[in-house]
Amino acid sequence: MSTVRAWGTPGFAQPLEPVTIERRELRADDVRIRIEFAGICHSDIHTMRGDWGERAYPLVPGHEIVGIVDAVGAEVTTFRVGERVGVGCFVDSCGTCHPCELGEISYCEEGPTVTYGGLDRATGEVTQGGYSQEIVVREAFVVRIPEGLDPAAAAPLLCAGITTYSPLRHWGVGPGTRVGIIGMGGLGHVGVKIAAAMGAEVTVFSHSTAKRDDALRFGAVRHISTADGLPEELHRHFDLLLNTVSVDLDTAACLELLRFDGALVQLGLPGAPLAAPVRMFTQARRSLSGSLVGGIRETQEMLDFCAAHGITADIELIDAPFINEAYDRTIASDVRYRFVIDAATF
Amino acid sequence: MSTVRAWGTPGFAQPLEPVTIERRELRADDVRIRIEFAGICHSDIHTMRGDWGERAYPLVPGHEIVGIVDAVGAEVTTFRVGERVGVGCFVDSCGTCHPCELGEISYCEEGPTVTYGGLDRATGEVTQGGYSQEIVVREAFVVRIPEGLDPAAAAPLLCAGITTYSPLRHWGVGPGTRVGIIGMGGLGHVGVKIAAAMGAEVTVFSHSTAKRDDALRFGAVRHISTADGLPEELHRHFDLLLNTVSVDLDTAACLELLRFDGALVQLGLPGAPLAAPVRMFTQARRSLSGSLVGGIRETQEMLDFCAAHGITADIELIDAPFINEAYDRTIASDVRYRFVIDAATF
Repeated sequence: MSTVRAWGTPGFAQPLEPVTIERRELRADDVRIRIEFAGICHSDIHTMRGDWGERAYPLVPGHEIVGIVDAVGAEVTTFRVGERVGVGCFVDSCGTCHPCELGEISYCEEGPTVTYGGLDRATGEVTQGGYSQEIVVREAFVVRIPEGLDPAAAAPLLCAGITTYSPLRHWGVGPGTRVGIIGMGGLGHVGVKIAAAMGAEVTVFSHSTAKRDDALRFGAVRHISTADGLPEELHRHFDLLLNTVSVDLDTAACLELLRFDGALVQLGLPGAPLAAPVRMFTQARRSLSGSLVGGIRETQEMLDFCAAHGITADIELIDAPFINEAYDRTIASDVRYRFVIDAATF
Repeated sequence: MSTVRAWGTPGFAQPLEPVTIERRELRADDVRIRIEFAGICHSDIHTMRGDWGERAYPLVPGHEIVGIVDAVGAEVTTFRVGERVGVGCFVDSCGTCHPCELGEISYCEEGPTVTYGGLDRATGEVTQGGYSQEIVVREAFVVRIPEGLDPAAAAPLLCAGITTYSPLRHWGVGPGTRVGIIGMGGLGHVGVKIAAAMGAEVTVFSHSTAKRDDALRFGAVRHISTADGLPEELHRHFDLLLNTVSVDLDTAACLELLRFDGALVQLGLPGAPLAAPVRMFTQARRSLSGSLVGGIRETQEMLDFCAAHGITADIELIDAPFINEAYDRTIASDVRYRFVIDAATF
């Protein structure tokens, strides 16, 4: 065991502060990582502020992790000391269910082990996340950060990147595909860049015009401010709509934007049920679906894709003491587009 | 023009009776068909009984049509006099929209021309359906009935067959796919046969146990009476659920039966919006979709598939004067499994 410095919350809905946590001794298939950077994901804030219920405390969040391997277990073959690696939303899964067998560990039927606030499958201990100096993770849940990607700006790819890349790939986006991205925050802005790099015609739907110039800079051909309503000329336009926001939208109105065989895919988690008249589906064989992060093999593929296309997140790099203020600003949509914490300051 | 005998309704929600209608002179790309058999589809009954609003009268229903070519227009190349052919739900479409270009005419963005109660795209005249001695249809909307298919029992394939075959194909059903068919009426019983012939493991969901033996005879491995609720051991079981019924089901409970990447596809048209919590989608990348009949090329493919596998509908062959009683019995689910009218009796 090693004791490491971290930032976490000492109790329900309390601000984050410096804490110390224990990291386990290396198991045979473990990789120990000296963390360099940790991104701040919206879901960190929901969890820390108690929006999703009470957890065990202290709790250290963070599932957009980049660092350097500084030790490996006896049976580790994939990684060597000194390599730059990443860890995302999950650190283990059952390994035997149908999705796990397909490598789709985020859909593990037992529930994958989340990077923080989960229960270690061997010991039952609560997992602690990336706002810390060090983390120990099973080799199978570690990915390689390609050279050429700025490590701080690559950190958000481990969640925001894979969460958008996976559905873009699964729904077959390529040259000419008409993709709409609803919401251009942490997820959305990376989604725009990836979809554009895949050759898609990308449209951003945003509640204001504030991010219009950025949307076009990231590769969108069109920015629609939803405050003006959804333009009728875009009815039956899209092949794929990724909804990255967690507010309750009009599902039927979104479906109407899809052309034949189009899909509306939920990445956010609004509270109200999704509802639409049956003719919205039958009329044009539209689909309503959802996507949850992505697999480890696919995360590596995403990172390699991003390296090949020079894609990282747009970030604001901060020191640990700024975390609570960064949370406030993220909630207020006042970040362009992801805060990343310099782990040297933990 | 030729005057032909038919059965139709003389006015809103009135019983069917003998009527005469005019069939147009052959255009260059028209095929004239001496009708042998016409199936009775549930949607005929809804239309005739006024459930879907008022139409122009007299109106002759019928879109499951089998007959013999008895004349062809000057430019017809695909069909010859004497061949046995079929006509289904559509007799024309715009031909230029995105789905039409893909051959998916049932999703025509202008709305395909329906076989009865539609408006001829050239003249604006109301189309009249298959409960008649003769019909004149554009060559591109006619299919060939393969030899070896009983022509009366093949008639329902033109609607019930293609409406189930199309989603089974689109969603990639093959050996080992786990398919659930909700409702085993006209559509459902053909769907069971086709899915089983594709190699799927087929389960029938039915409101009673009355059709259990038939379900197994048609190729299902399992019959679930929904009166007992949905069995928990089938949660996360299915790859594809086809809902053939038009009553309001619990969409979330149906989605829960799907495993990773499974799809619930609506063929029926319930009145209430379909609604389910977002986690039902994100948790296992499930999809909710709908499917509407199918294209002409695909209808031919379906007929050839059915011929290769010896599949037709189970039918009760009736004479025209029995139509109104057949409607009552169809509404009461008292038909095994489709009424087909002998056109010699019109």
